[in-house]
Amino acid sequence: MKKQKTREHIVEAADQLFYQQGYENTSFTDISDAVQISRGNFYYHFKTKDDILEAVISARMDKTRKMLSQWELDGSHPENRIRCFVRILITNRDEILNYGCPVGTLTTELAKLKHASRDEANALFTLFRDWLKEQFILLGRSKDADDLAMHLLARSQGVATLASAFHDAKFIDQEVAQMCDWLNTYVIEK
Amino acid sequence: MKKQKTREHIVEAADQLFYQQGYENTSFTDISDAVQISRGNFYYHFKTKDDILEAVISARMDKTRKMLSQWELDGSHPENRIRCFVRILITNRDEILNYGCPVGTLTTELAKLKHASRDEANALFTLFRDWLKEQFILLGRSKDADDLAMHLLARSQGVATLASAFHDAKFIDQEVAQMCDWLNTYVIEK
Repeated sequence: MKKQKTREHIVEAADQLFYQQGYENTSFTDISDAVQISRGNFYYHFKTKDDILEAVISARMDKTRKMLSQWELDGSHPENRIRCFVRILITNRDEILNYGCPVGTLTTELAKLKHASRDEANALFTLFRDWLKEQFILLGRSKDADDLAMHLLARSQGVATLASAFHDAKFIDQEVAQMCDWLNTYVIEK
Repeated sequence: MKKQKTREHIVEAADQLFYQQGYENTSFTDISDAVQISRGNFYYHFKTKDDILEAVISARMDKTRKMLSQWELDGSHPENRIRCFVRILITNRDEILNYGCPVGTLTTELAKLKHASRDEANALFTLFRDWLKEQFILLGRSKDADDLAMHLLARSQGVATLASAFHDAKFIDQEVAQMCDWLNTYVIEK
């Protein structure tokens, strides 16, 4: 039990560091320093930074799946669930202003590194894409559900990138309102 | 004259490497290897990787200013100039599919590194933002010209991120068409 807790602790610390300062820029030592356990104990759990990255991505997948399930419970109608997705920009505003979107920035970095875990990181995007697609199908848009999902994913990515570059919280609010408008006028009323 | 050419050569090689494999992941040696000049000659021009980054950003600013001036000549009407901006995603499609947007990915990386040149890199975004704002003002939208500029910048950023993650060229074409539609129906006809 204690071993499992230590492992989770390492993965959480690495997740934060990869997000806040980048994967390449985070050393094995940075992570063990953050966790404050002995080198021996650390190595028992992970031998390389790549192993930690795999565990971080896997933990993010689990967390995202749980979040999507929660949104399904929170929103009885698919449009409300999609609004939960859009509003994630507001929920995580402070972190986004400082570090951008955790998914977008990781996949972008791993692509440039031609990293072996690149596809695993992209699967995080696929998780959101498939879930959004499902909601658009439920809204009667089965023909272009995937296009709508990709469109909304892209808009929310772009908002995160620009809000972070200009450190502009108001821009997030404005664009979230516009995405909700788009949902109403282009998807629901159409 | 020859010295100036060597300097330009170094900056060009560094620009490509920073874009393709990331700033942090590119070493001083990677750059000098790519340029194939002696260490002494290299150090004559640049002492640190940070110095090279400054020169790369400055070169990108010059290149962008020239491109924007060219678009002003190419498009007699502001809507045509804005379409030039939107179509940049198609012009640079192959590189975007592999490495994302050069501006967005650099600013994102430098933000995570808390790099001293972060503001200089963000100025590249500001250049596009101010130019787009000017075009929207010419289209009679002085009241929300800056919001429209930020909206379009964000959409094009998001398309680059998603197209790169899914290596999806068709998605770029689709979204470029939608941005042109948005320009027609939301900006021009409104």
